[in-house]
Amino acid sequence: MVVPDLEKALSLYKDVLGAQVSEAVALPEHGVYTVFVELGNTKLELLHPLGEKSPIASFLEKNKTGGMHHICIEVDDIKAAMTELKKKKIRILSEEPKIGAHGKPVIFLHPKDCHGVLVELEQA
Amino acid sequence: MVVPDLEKALSLYKDVLGAQVSEAVALPEHGVYTVFVELGNTKLELLHPLGEKSPIASFLEKNKTGGMHHICIEVDDIKAAMTELKKKKIRILSEEPKIGAHGKPVIFLHPKDCHGVLVELEQA
Repeated sequence: MVVPDLEKALSLYKDVLGAQVSEAVALPEHGVYTVFVELGNTKLELLHPLGEKSPIASFLEKNKTGGMHHICIEVDDIKAAMTELKKKKIRILSEEPKIGAHGKPVIFLHPKDCHGVLVELEQA
Repeated sequence: MVVPDLEKALSLYKDVLGAQVSEAVALPEHGVYTVFVELGNTKLELLHPLGEKSPIASFLEKNKTGGMHHICIEVDDIKAAMTELKKKKIRILSEEPKIGAHGKPVIFLHPKDCHGVLVELEQA
């Protein structure tokens, strides 16, 4: 979820909903600050733009109050997933996996091939 | 996630991504068809409008390719959660819990109080 105010969003999940929430971490190579909300079985990722070329700046411009940006699903073998996705004509937004927020290989699938949802796959 | 074509969306998660996917279930009292994608630790809910007064029809009108509609977080005691949320000035979209897709009490929180995200709480 992209949020216009990281501290306020963090406070909703921590102080109001009582979840365990990480510190804000700057990821300059991704152009984002991230906070992870730990829900036991899964995590919510709060994102806020970092720097002028942040890839989420235009999203926040269009969604000024914030909004859901993407979902992330773990896979065992990202290269095998890429081969399979190419066979099934699902477009991948990069030629090679990149290193994501958890230091693990990630790819993003084209939202038009995923009924309007930006889907990230992360090698677990 | 609200999707324009339930069968196609179901097929992405089942046939391409290899997840276990439920049958489509009609919930006329909610004005939706639902499909649950089982991811082991969590579920994705695919929603498609049912009937002319479906509460998600306008969302699909605005997001023709589909998109993320809400997140759902489980709580132990929904009445206690409501009391706490009211204290913290988070608006709830109904006076009383309703019965959700799993036959359990649910409430929805105002997206403007949740940084642009529609948040559903379900009593586990």
